[in-house]
Amino acid sequence: MKNTQPIPGSREEIISRTPFPASQKIYIPGKIHPVQVAMREISLSGTQIDDKTIENPGVTVYDTSGPYTDTNIKIDIREGLPRLRSPWVEKRGDIETLESFSSDFVNQNQAKTPAALRFPKKPKPYKALPGKNITQLHYARQGIITPEMEYVAIRENQRREAIQNGDSNLRQHPGQAFGAGIPPEGITPEFVRSEIAAGRAIIPNNVNHPESEPMIIGRNFLVKINANIGNSAVTSSMEEEVEKAVWACRWGADTIMDLSTGKNIHETREWVIRNAPVPVGTVPIYQALEKVNGKAENLTWEIFRDTLIEQAEQGVDYFTIHAGVLLRYVPLTAKRVTGIVSRGGSIMAKWCLAHHRENFLYTHFEEICEIMKAYDVAFSLGDGLRPGSIADANDAAQFAELETLGELTQVAWKHDVQVMIEGPGHVPMHLIKENMDKQLKHCHEAPFYTLGPLTTDIAPGYDHITSAIGAAMIGWFGTAMLCYVTPKEHLGLPNKQDVKTGVITYKLAAHAADLAKGHPGAQYRDNALSKARFEFRWNDQFNLSLDPDTAREYHDETLPAEGARIAHFCSMCGPHFCSMKITQEVREYAQSQGLNETQALEQGMQEKAKHFVEQGGEIFQ
Amino acid sequence: MKNTQPIPGSREEIISRTPFPASQKIYIPGKIHPVQVAMREISLSGTQIDDKTIENPGVTVYDTSGPYTDTNIKIDIREGLPRLRSPWVEKRGDIETLESFSSDFVNQNQAKTPAALRFPKKPKPYKALPGKNITQLHYARQGIITPEMEYVAIRENQRREAIQNGDSNLRQHPGQAFGAGIPPEGITPEFVRSEIAAGRAIIPNNVNHPESEPMIIGRNFLVKINANIGNSAVTSSMEEEVEKAVWACRWGADTIMDLSTGKNIHETREWVIRNAPVPVGTVPIYQALEKVNGKAENLTWEIFRDTLIEQAEQGVDYFTIHAGVLLRYVPLTAKRVTGIVSRGGSIMAKWCLAHHRENFLYTHFEEICEIMKAYDVAFSLGDGLRPGSIADANDAAQFAELETLGELTQVAWKHDVQVMIEGPGHVPMHLIKENMDKQLKHCHEAPFYTLGPLTTDIAPGYDHITSAIGAAMIGWFGTAMLCYVTPKEHLGLPNKQDVKTGVITYKLAAHAADLAKGHPGAQYRDNALSKARFEFRWNDQFNLSLDPDTAREYHDETLPAEGARIAHFCSMCGPHFCSMKITQEVREYAQSQGLNETQALEQGMQEKAKHFVEQGGEIFQ
Repeated sequence: MKNTQPIPGSREEIISRTPFPASQKIYIPGKIHPVQVAMREISLSGTQIDDKTIENPGVTVYDTSGPYTDTNIKIDIREGLPRLRSPWVEKRGDIETLESFSSDFVNQNQAKTPAALRFPKKPKPYKALPGKNITQLHYARQGIITPEMEYVAIRENQRREAIQNGDSNLRQHPGQAFGAGIPPEGITPEFVRSEIAAGRAIIPNNVNHPESEPMIIGRNFLVKINANIGNSAVTSSMEEEVEKAVWACRWGADTIMDLSTGKNIHETREWVIRNAPVPVGTVPIYQALEKVNGKAENLTWEIFRDTLIEQAEQGVDYFTIHAGVLLRYVPLTAKRVTGIVSRGGSIMAKWCLAHHRENFLYTHFEEICEIMKAYDVAFSLGDGLRPGSIADANDAAQFAELETLGELTQVAWKHDVQVMIEGPGHVPMHLIKENMDKQLKHCHEAPFYTLGPLTTDIAPGYDHITSAIGAAMIGWFGTAMLCYVTPKEHLGLPNKQDVKTGVITYKLAAHAADLAKGHPGAQYRDNALSKARFEFRWNDQFNLSLDPDTAREYHDETLPAEGARIAHFCSMCGPHFCSMKITQEVREYAQSQGLNETQALEQGMQEKAKHFVEQGGEIFQ
Repeated sequence: MKNTQPIPGSREEIISRTPFPASQKIYIPGKIHPVQVAMREISLSGTQIDDKTIENPGVTVYDTSGPYTDTNIKIDIREGLPRLRSPWVEKRGDIETLESFSSDFVNQNQAKTPAALRFPKKPKPYKALPGKNITQLHYARQGIITPEMEYVAIRENQRREAIQNGDSNLRQHPGQAFGAGIPPEGITPEFVRSEIAAGRAIIPNNVNHPESEPMIIGRNFLVKINANIGNSAVTSSMEEEVEKAVWACRWGADTIMDLSTGKNIHETREWVIRNAPVPVGTVPIYQALEKVNGKAENLTWEIFRDTLIEQAEQGVDYFTIHAGVLLRYVPLTAKRVTGIVSRGGSIMAKWCLAHHRENFLYTHFEEICEIMKAYDVAFSLGDGLRPGSIADANDAAQFAELETLGELTQVAWKHDVQVMIEGPGHVPMHLIKENMDKQLKHCHEAPFYTLGPLTTDIAPGYDHITSAIGAAMIGWFGTAMLCYVTPKEHLGLPNKQDVKTGVITYKLAAHAADLAKGHPGAQYRDNALSKARFEFRWNDQFNLSLDPDTAREYHDETLPAEGARIAHFCSMCGPHFCSMKITQEVREYAQSQGLNETQALEQGMQEKAKHFVEQGGEIFQ
């Protein structure tokens, strides 16, 4: 890989550590708590006008890459990342450190793991003191602004000050938010608290994953993306998984889900969590199924319960739990074109039918809540009956399950456990909004977390794109987090390049949604990049882009010389024929002729120019 | 390239000719005229249930690849394609064959072209007899159904018969069409005629490009896509351009635009047109500018007029003409972040300012119409003031020009000249619909032809995706044709792989729009592919996809063995753990237990099952 900074002879040599070009890591201090919020600042070159250079301010961007892109931080994946949140967690005085793990599986199997695979410095687990509830939702409802809340407020609000300072790059279309929105005073710590208290947002951060930087998932915040990683029975190796996680975060993954299903699941997860700067989610039923040798009918509540505790004490931040797949919904899928395509959904459907009993995840849901709140694990209520094809979109099975997820949301909230809701899948464009509307209604505005949706089935190999269309739209309508899809979806396992393509594709879809919603400051980066493009500041254009390496590489394929990057033309048109060059001349000409708006008015263009002036207030805030 | 069938020693060796897998070219005869409508039929394997094989009907798909994928047709690019439409054109008796070209430029420069570059068999041009109007719009308004109209009716309507035969793959979501829609009786030749007569659709087919297969652009038809090809001053060679055209059509380009700006423009275009099975568009001002050595201020109406005649007699099917860039609109762009980004727009703006006179394309518009109708060249009224960044979207300059385009549409219609309108550009999602609504209103429902729009500026290298999001949405809202964007947009010239990526990306976006609009039969291919996927018919899944080569390649990366392609599992989950496999078991189990909907009702699921039955009528037509 290009983007690595090898430390020869160490395990780190495969870990991507190169900082982004023209970028430096900055840390913004909190005002309430001693937090240091990590961001990335991109430096820009100046604008040349005749002999003068006009400075362009640096652009601060949201940064999910963690300590890996900070050259001042030593990384040793055998140690894991610094335990950023441990002091905050310990300071609250409502947890204890356990001397040993509570899971039978862990205690019975720890010794069996080959030494070479073992994570060397396994931390002892935290757990809530008996009778204590340590969820962010619980604190929020008590009126407490935690360090986590302040962290995400600063993180989401990075460009607010620049807006207030009147930087012209911040002129922005007002956006069209559906339903509740961001208040005029912006994203304050108190706003974060109130959104969490209302159940409209979650901060997934298990106390046992203090390495992660707090982030928030909710529709009044930046749209987030998740990247799935994980090995399988057929391919992939453990150590690559750590780099896959680092790699996904580097390009913009806000959370990762470890969907491993092969051998050594527990130990792989340990390595990933200890080195992940973002929240980690899992689908615990996958591991539970491994424990019964893949036979769904042999699953029991006890095995599942032990798996939840095992993973909660490792530090998994959110669990996908398919508690809405009820026995009576299963026959509703029989006439579908693609039946049940969710792995977790099909496992539970099989279990229900085999035993003629109700889904044990549903019947034991309150007990699950008790576990979740002892570590602050968030629910991601799984959509086990999501449509797997355009034909099956928005059908009775899907919406029946959604109503049950709404019912379970209220049970979880009764326990002050954080909840988000998973959504489809495959949905044609005209049926997307109905998904969002029904989710808001039935699930009481708990954050929605969707896979795509894919807007057509006919393009395997391009499903990152078929789904980015649906993802951008549903993000605009109010979905809080988008689960990425790679080009290999439906075909095979993504490689490193596929993971990057999936992450960048979803990052741009999420950003398109932020623009449409009018998230404060979202358009700043677009404006800065477009201004750089217009002024032929090629390096600035690359550096401001989501993927500077690819932008630079594509440009250099046609015009590789360094000189060309500051040339006042590009390869599309050649040196004699460039629309941007001509426009600059037009602009200069218009100025020299005094053809500004005032004069345009005088020249009899009253109507058009009046229109322009009137629109001004509407177009630019 | 993989997809070529080389004929060693000939120029054809670089031309892609391999038929698509499991596909054959079929020709459907007309009922009114002796037309033979080319389509592609994909054969499927049977569904295995226990020992029985249930046959799956072949799937007919719209095919833009032309004769190149028919192994029965001999291709010689020095001869050009068969002149399919010549008999239809000649039979009407309203044209003459000219003995020589009418353009001064052609007559003065023909001898100067190096012999090696010359197209060997240049046909003599057709032209309307004096006083005759030979446009499809003219015929449509006379109530005449031309062979071209019948051809496109059959082409658009391919799956109508299968729908009427009750094939269950044709159950389809009703769709949400905005405004005028397809009548219940489907796309008949008379419906085609009426849409053209109303100005809501065009068939761009210059009588001098009889090699092209008729296609229709209008919002009550399948959404079409255009691919731009062409050399430039910096790179690219002429012969590659022919293959680039063939290549773009192979993957789904409904029209191509030749945007060449370098040397030998005329001769390159000749090779492309003679070998293009789809309509070819150009921006004549580019060549006119070459004739005045790139100095916009030296352009004259006379030079431009001669260029129009030159290109019309070669067979260009539609001209982008930036007649809406009026002098008084230019200052409206001065405060934009990215000024004027359309090449044609900036050329005309510069000319207007240099001469302090109104755009000569506007002042000579009626004379342009006279030329267009003598060959049936369609207008593509250019949006010279389209926004080049999110910041500049939907501004006064853009909408002022749009109103002028509407005025010019009516002038063109007075001459029975076919018209479509070009649109943006860069637009955030929430401002897209306004573009469509305003276009329909101001341009009297003439077809809209948009570039993207790009929904964010921050992802250079991925602008095929940022724009596919906007393209799918605006296609759904009613845009008739989408101009593709490649991954190299803003960065450099697309190579062959980029062209393919751009075409496939836009094909899937157009198809997503067709699904959302509810175009009859659009969902058939999705259903057939999803059914194949669910039944582990891997080869069928690949063959039904937009890009079978890539789908197969991605699959084989992980599971290369032939056996794996018929295996009942895939690499995502491995042999023991596959949701589709489990679902099949669920389905069998549900059947064996008699857990059908009727029994579900009896078991106390009245409410849910009632919901299911009620939804049935709504979900499936």
